[in-house]
Amino acid sequence: MEEKKTYDNLGFARLDTDRKRRTGFPEVVFCSKKPDEYLLKIYQKLYEEDGRVFGTRATKEQYELVKTVIPEIEYDPISRILKAEKKSETSENFPNQGKGLIAVCTAGTADISVAEEAAKTAEYFGRNVKRYYDVGISGIHRLLDIEDELQEADCIIAVAGMEGALPSVIGGLVGCPVIAVPTSVGYGVSEGGIAALLSMLSSCANGISVVNIDNGYGAGYIATEISRLRD
Amino acid sequence: MEEKKTYDNLGFARLDTDRKRRTGFPEVVFCSKKPDEYLLKIYQKLYEEDGRVFGTRATKEQYELVKTVIPEIEYDPISRILKAEKKSETSENFPNQGKGLIAVCTAGTADISVAEEAAKTAEYFGRNVKRYYDVGISGIHRLLDIEDELQEADCIIAVAGMEGALPSVIGGLVGCPVIAVPTSVGYGVSEGGIAALLSMLSSCANGISVVNIDNGYGAGYIATEISRLRD
Amino acid sequence: MEEKKTYDNLGFARLDTDRKRRTGFPEVVFCSKKPDEYLLKIYQKLYEEDGRVFGTRATKEQYELVKTVIPEIEYDPISRILKAEKKSETSENFPNQGKGLIAVCTAGTADISVAEEAAKTAEYFGRNVKRYYDVGISGIHRLLDIEDELQEADCIIAVAGMEGALPSVIGGLVGCPVIAVPTSVGYGVSEGGIAALLSMLSSCANGISVVNIDNGYGAGYIATEISRLRD
Amino acid sequence: MEEKKTYDNLGFARLDTDRKRRTGFPEVVFCSKKPDEYLLKIYQKLYEEDGRVFGTRATKEQYELVKTVIPEIEYDPISRILKAEKKSETSENFPNQGKGLIAVCTAGTADISVAEEAAKTAEYFGRNVKRYYDVGISGIHRLLDIEDELQEADCIIAVAGMEGALPSVIGGLVGCPVIAVPTSVGYGVSEGGIAALLSMLSSCANGISVVNIDNGYGAGYIATEISRLRD
Amino acid sequence: MEEKKTYDNLGFARLDTDRKRRTGFPEVVFCSKKPDEYLLKIYQKLYEEDGRVFGTRATKEQYELVKTVIPEIEYDPISRILKAEKKSETSENFPNQGKGLIAVCTAGTADISVAEEAAKTAEYFGRNVKRYYDVGISGIHRLLDIEDELQEADCIIAVAGMEGALPSVIGGLVGCPVIAVPTSVGYGVSEGGIAALLSMLSSCANGISVVNIDNGYGAGYIATEISRLRD
Amino acid sequence: MEEKKTYDNLGFARLDTDRKRRTGFPEVVFCSKKPDEYLLKIYQKLYEEDGRVFGTRATKEQYELVKTVIPEIEYDPISRILKAEKKSETSENFPNQGKGLIAVCTAGTADISVAEEAAKTAEYFGRNVKRYYDVGISGIHRLLDIEDELQEADCIIAVAGMEGALPSVIGGLVGCPVIAVPTSVGYGVSEGGIAALLSMLSSCANGISVVNIDNGYGAGYIATEISRLRD
Amino acid sequence: MEEKKTYDNLGFARLDTDRKRRTGFPEVVFCSKKPDEYLLKIYQKLYEEDGRVFGTRATKEQYELVKTVIPEIEYDPISRILKAEKKSETSENFPNQGKGLIAVCTAGTADISVAEEAAKTAEYFGRNVKRYYDVGISGIHRLLDIEDELQEADCIIAVAGMEGALPSVIGGLVGCPVIAVPTSVGYGVSEGGIAALLSMLSSCANGISVVNIDNGYGAGYIATEISRLRD
Amino acid sequence: MEEKKTYDNLGFARLDTDRKRRTGFPEVVFCSKKPDEYLLKIYQKLYEEDGRVFGTRATKEQYELVKTVIPEIEYDPISRILKAEKKSETSENFPNQGKGLIAVCTAGTADISVAEEAAKTAEYFGRNVKRYYDVGISGIHRLLDIEDELQEADCIIAVAGMEGALPSVIGGLVGCPVIAVPTSVGYGVSEGGIAALLSMLSSCANGISVVNIDNGYGAGYIATEISRLRD
Repeated sequence: MEEKKTYDNLGFARLDTDRKRRTGFPEVVFCSKKPDEYLLKIYQKLYEEDGRVFGTRATKEQYELVKTVIPEIEYDPISRILKAEKKSETSENFPNQGKGLIAVCTAGTADISVAEEAAKTAEYFGRNVKRYYDVGISGIHRLLDIEDELQEADCIIAVAGMEGALPSVIGGLVGCPVIAVPTSVGYGVSEGGIAALLSMLSSCANGISVVNIDNGYGAGYIATEISRLRD
Repeated sequence: MEEKKTYDNLGFARLDTDRKRRTGFPEVVFCSKKPDEYLLKIYQKLYEEDGRVFGTRATKEQYELVKTVIPEIEYDPISRILKAEKKSETSENFPNQGKGLIAVCTAGTADISVAEEAAKTAEYFGRNVKRYYDVGISGIHRLLDIEDELQEADCIIAVAGMEGALPSVIGGLVGCPVIAVPTSVGYGVSEGGIAALLSMLSSCANGISVVNIDNGYGAGYIATEISRLRD
Repeated sequence: MEEKKTYDNLGFARLDTDRKRRTGFPEVVFCSKKPDEYLLKIYQKLYEEDGRVFGTRATKEQYELVKTVIPEIEYDPISRILKAEKKSETSENFPNQGKGLIAVCTAGTADISVAEEAAKTAEYFGRNVKRYYDVGISGIHRLLDIEDELQEADCIIAVAGMEGALPSVIGGLVGCPVIAVPTSVGYGVSEGGIAALLSMLSSCANGISVVNIDNGYGAGYIATEISRLRD
Repeated sequence: MEEKKTYDNLGFARLDTDRKRRTGFPEVVFCSKKPDEYLLKIYQKLYEEDGRVFGTRATKEQYELVKTVIPEIEYDPISRILKAEKKSETSENFPNQGKGLIAVCTAGTADISVAEEAAKTAEYFGRNVKRYYDVGISGIHRLLDIEDELQEADCIIAVAGMEGALPSVIGGLVGCPVIAVPTSVGYGVSEGGIAALLSMLSSCANGISVVNIDNGYGAGYIATEISRLRD
Repeated sequence: MEEKKTYDNLGFARLDTDRKRRTGFPEVVFCSKKPDEYLLKIYQKLYEEDGRVFGTRATKEQYELVKTVIPEIEYDPISRILKAEKKSETSENFPNQGKGLIAVCTAGTADISVAEEAAKTAEYFGRNVKRYYDVGISGIHRLLDIEDELQEADCIIAVAGMEGALPSVIGGLVGCPVIAVPTSVGYGVSEGGIAALLSMLSSCANGISVVNIDNGYGAGYIATEISRLRD
Repeated sequence: MEEKKTYDNLGFARLDTDRKRRTGFPEVVFCSKKPDEYLLKIYQKLYEEDGRVFGTRATKEQYELVKTVIPEIEYDPISRILKAEKKSETSENFPNQGKGLIAVCTAGTADISVAEEAAKTAEYFGRNVKRYYDVGISGIHRLLDIEDELQEADCIIAVAGMEGALPSVIGGLVGCPVIAVPTSVGYGVSEGGIAALLSMLSSCANGISVVNIDNGYGAGYIATEISRLRD
Repeated sequence: MEEKKTYDNLGFARLDTDRKRRTGFPEVVFCSKKPDEYLLKIYQKLYEEDGRVFGTRATKEQYELVKTVIPEIEYDPISRILKAEKKSETSENFPNQGKGLIAVCTAGTADISVAEEAAKTAEYFGRNVKRYYDVGISGIHRLLDIEDELQEADCIIAVAGMEGALPSVIGGLVGCPVIAVPTSVGYGVSEGGIAALLSMLSSCANGISVVNIDNGYGAGYIATEISRLRD
Repeated sequence: MEEKKTYDNLGFARLDTDRKRRTGFPEVVFCSKKPDEYLLKIYQKLYEEDGRVFGTRATKEQYELVKTVIPEIEYDPISRILKAEKKSETSENFPNQGKGLIAVCTAGTADISVAEEAAKTAEYFGRNVKRYYDVGISGIHRLLDIEDELQEADCIIAVAGMEGALPSVIGGLVGCPVIAVPTSVGYGVSEGGIAALLSMLSSCANGISVVNIDNGYGAGYIATEISRLRD
């Protein structure tokens, strides 16, 4: 076992270049608060080696910075994803070629940013995604209206802030796994997302598992793993 | 204003005998952990003066204790209500004579104890009550099935533990006030009822206000106040 | 049941146009952090369809934005309510025509912003409102002074930060429902409103139910539902 | 849509008999704190209708109670599962006929009870399960030793108390979904399982989603849903 | 400064025999969970040296244990105080000879145990105490009725559980220091006393300082220090 | 009792003009976040009626604002006190004429702002104050050095952030009341002051009571009440 | 590297037999809540292989159980340590042969149980230990009295509950590492040990690091590692 | 003992000039939020007296301020350390002359700032430091790769945010003390560092003790104390 070749030691970072072989997923960059110098080096290194690079939680400033060295970099202000692909093969760019089906639902309009992070992540990893936004439980008929469509998905990502009850209702309707994503949307006791998180973990419905607050990327990743099982 | 006559000073307690005039409700006894000697004196005093006495959170031991001095005392082990009425006029005993309509719903079977405390309280205060138990959101059709009946109530009491989402769904369906009661039912993050409480306070639906965890009595009381407005 | 017509799907939002029929209240806009593009579309759509639109937690910037498309929009910087009515029928504009009576009390001056959100919401929904500000318990005579007036209300909204004891004292004085609104006013352990919230939920007085911290709108809504029962 | 036939209304409970059709899973009983009378009726009803019944969190006393009406009931004191099957078809009874492969790992010996609840649930729903117990990270070589075996699973259930780091390390090694189950094992800051829960939600590794503390059943359920995708 | 003589080293304990000189108060014993052997030795040692010994949070079992070596020991089951005085000089035994005046108030009957610990502590240290029990704010007239008496105290101890608002109202009425004691009385969010504690710390009234939950002894101690200033 | 004259109703505020008679202290202004219009009116009203006005938590902007209507207003940027006195009689201005003795200690330099709020409040109410800053327990000899001076005070205010142990050590040394003030100084688990607050409430020493985090004013107020007892 | 030999797979446990080589410490047993069958097998296996076995958090019942198979097992009810050594070489048994010097201090008598777990652990691992019990900060002279002795230790273990200030004061006096152990001793806000834990982590003194609440074993272990550096 | 000479009283601060003698470490400055005037005086005083001064948590603005009076001051923006040495003798400046060996590891790139504070502190106090950054457990091979090097250290500082599992894995591999430093890196439940802190305190591995969140300085200090034992 030649350990030495499994990562690239940049001093401040050890890029896990063996990850793709081990897990089937390339290394991804968490951009939030990364010092400029580090961010640039990591983007350049990954882009050179893999021909593509994908980062989350990027700011507009980081986009402009990376653009100076990777002119073809693309930034989506809603999902805050910053990525480049020399030869793009993702579902997002070739929508008809994605595999499987992941449904991404939100309770409200304010949850869309996190939902898009999840959706674009799954698309980047080659999955088909359908979006159902603003189907929260205060108007339950909006959700019942799409019940049949949800039944067809391999996996459902349910994104909600405030009381976070959406995944529970969905979990009672379908037979596929539901990945619940609490969001930090709300105020008072729901500010920061703890109320939604606890609600989702406590769900009286089955088939629900939960990721960290606002962790759209994590939801998109695990939904991809699940959906791949059907390929 | 003759302040001196507004309460009975027993030394360890000052019974608020003016309460009925002021608020329209008689003094009620919170039995939990009351020392035996105090409990007996309070039950006797209130029964003598008002011809009826009503207590919550009573144990079977307290029932047997009070029975030694008030033989006609009645105890319900599910709601844990301990009461006696010389000349009963409550809706519970004369079901056709209660006024208004309060609907009491529970998410699950485990919430019934708290729901019965609420229901029997409202009945004691002269209201009609309809019970809808085990209509939690993991099987949403059970709730939709009673939607029309719920629309007819003056006020709905929605009792739920775990993720506590029931009031939110009901709040989106009806136009009358919903009193949400979180219960301590659950385990892990929902143990003790905090998850349900936060969820109810965070509700994305409107028309919901919340009482303390397991406070069935408080819910029955405020629902009575609300229902009386229609008389 | 023609489900398809019960909401307007804008893609990022599904406006619950059936709500008025179902609950007796029109859809209302929670403006906080809504992206500009979404906010504009929602305001325009609702104003076109209903002839009136009402939003909470709006900023001055949002007011100026919406004004570009709805010149008659009005903004109140204290309650942060942003609304327009083609043919106004609310109690606020026709004070003598409002129905019922809701009393809105605050413990201190700093709670006025939340109280105004509650009061203006109830007025918008056609209720009469009386305001009693700065009647907190540290000078209890200020509250006792208005005791008789409070007794006449259908429902009382009690707004308080810090230790949040105002609703408890009011609850002991009156016979109508009290909606308690904790505010985020305070510092140290009362910063953010948790101390006030817990205090209100724990109240030793009866007839009190609680909404989320700073949720003036929710209090105004449920108070309206309660007050309507007397119509 | 004939709503009336989708559940059995026992008064205290509405058995969701439509669940199997809707989600592919039969109704399951959460035995903890269920009153004796209710428990008996639910077990009898489900056993009559489905020919099998499965409950979690049962005590030895409940086992003896149910045995009086269903003599063939079986109880496992470690997983606390109480079940009966007229004509058993589960993987647990016909181990060679289970489908797929779910790996269940524990960090320590004290996590075995929760792990068995997960494992037996998945087996009851027809899945093959392999158990890897006491492979916690304080002796990382124990985990590396089974790395190749873990790679073959459809889904891994990682059960851990205390600092809850096991799922993170596994998540970095494999490409299939990891369902993390925090346990209430521990003392001081890890008592009750909050430390493990937060740790799992915060994982720096990907492909991990989390269920409630001690929720072995929930993990077994979602792992079954995931594993079925490969059938 | 001869440090060596300032304490008695028993091995498991170092009795602070210098405390009386330094602070004006003798060493007192916190009995809760003290191993029997240690408790006996400490009681014997202090009784021998000082001619009196005073302990809090004692159980009936501890009383019977200590009685075997100090036959004149006295136990009060309400305050849980266990004490003996060879030549008693406390206010409690010679009520006319106590100095100053400390008022001890409780919100409810359930707070009496903590209040008695406070009252008896102050009496043991030579103060006069007046008790006002069950004057909670849900019947504010009970409190206003004793306003004039409270104005005469050197210091007021206000004991309350649940929402803990009693000290705030008292603080607004009087000009002397108020020591607030939260109690663990309550359920749901007020269980354990945190709601009362936060409420008291957040008080909008002035002149209030707070001790730990259920710390009647601490309140009696500091009230004694305060009252002594007037001697 | 002529209730009507006990306060001044400004609409947004009811100034408690009876407070001085009732408690011996004039109304004081909590400036933080007060709207400009309200602040100005309150300062003017109080200054006109009482010839002096005292506010806490004022910003430099508020100082400049009030200066436009009360040119003689004074602002101290460390304590953030904003006050004016037509005919000053406070200890602060006539240091030799203050009464009693209050010692104000801080654990570190960062606690000085809160300590000054306490000290200046007590001086404004006519007390003598001695300051002992930076005597925290990490260099215990600094504290022992002033032990004799502390013994002479009527009351000690001990201000500390981080682990908040200063009051405990002082409480073990002296016989007068110690008012403990936790500060929000610190980072990590001590950020916001909760660690210091809990520590102070848990103190193993006696004679300590606690006010809210950063509540220098409250500490100065109650210390004044205590010190006055000796006059 | 022959991985297979590094642990013993008992099915329910994988004993880390390689640990001694890797870390210099043998495997130790955490007895709390271990099922009887597992406990017996683990004790037998370790005793056979190593000639000694050491467990913490054992109950008297577990002692009697293990005694049936290892008659020479010894149990200490204060530290709750359960151990056997065929050929004992620990400092505890040969006190003159232990190496280095570890000082174990407690704030109070109630902390002795945790302190003994720490002390006996270090002795078992071959260290000399000196005990200083009941030297808490409410009588600071008791601590100053032993200052010189503490200066001689390689490492100090400071055990305290309630406000947990002991390590901070010690940290300011000495130049060697201080391992702080919060205990669950206390009530109200200090119940369970969180106040002590936060206090220790927030310490304004240096040279302090902290282990979990009541973790005497962990403190003894790391103190041994530290003390060995001087050998 | 001449107490008076053990510190320098600047009024707002009492510099502990005796500390070096007592603990072997000079006084160090915590710059965060220090008022400019105080900071300047403290830096000048310490630099004059000791010939060197070392501060943590300094901002760039503070650097520029101090530079005006100590032109040779040096600032490192990553560790935020601000220091000057007239005659430098630290390991950092004379790397070959440092003593012992401390290993500093981070889980990720975002933990480097805290790690550098720890490393530079230890170097300032004369220790040799080796850095191993980005060796977190999501790619466990990166850590195993340096296992042999870690075994050679006197002490290991393990810095991690998010789930904070790094110290647990290291603790299972080595025999020297591990100082765990949680960082505030993360979002959702790991924001602020509480998840990492709890995880580290709960570690199932031994030989780990923990300092406050982001307390790199404290870790460097105690690691120095430990490493010195081997000199």
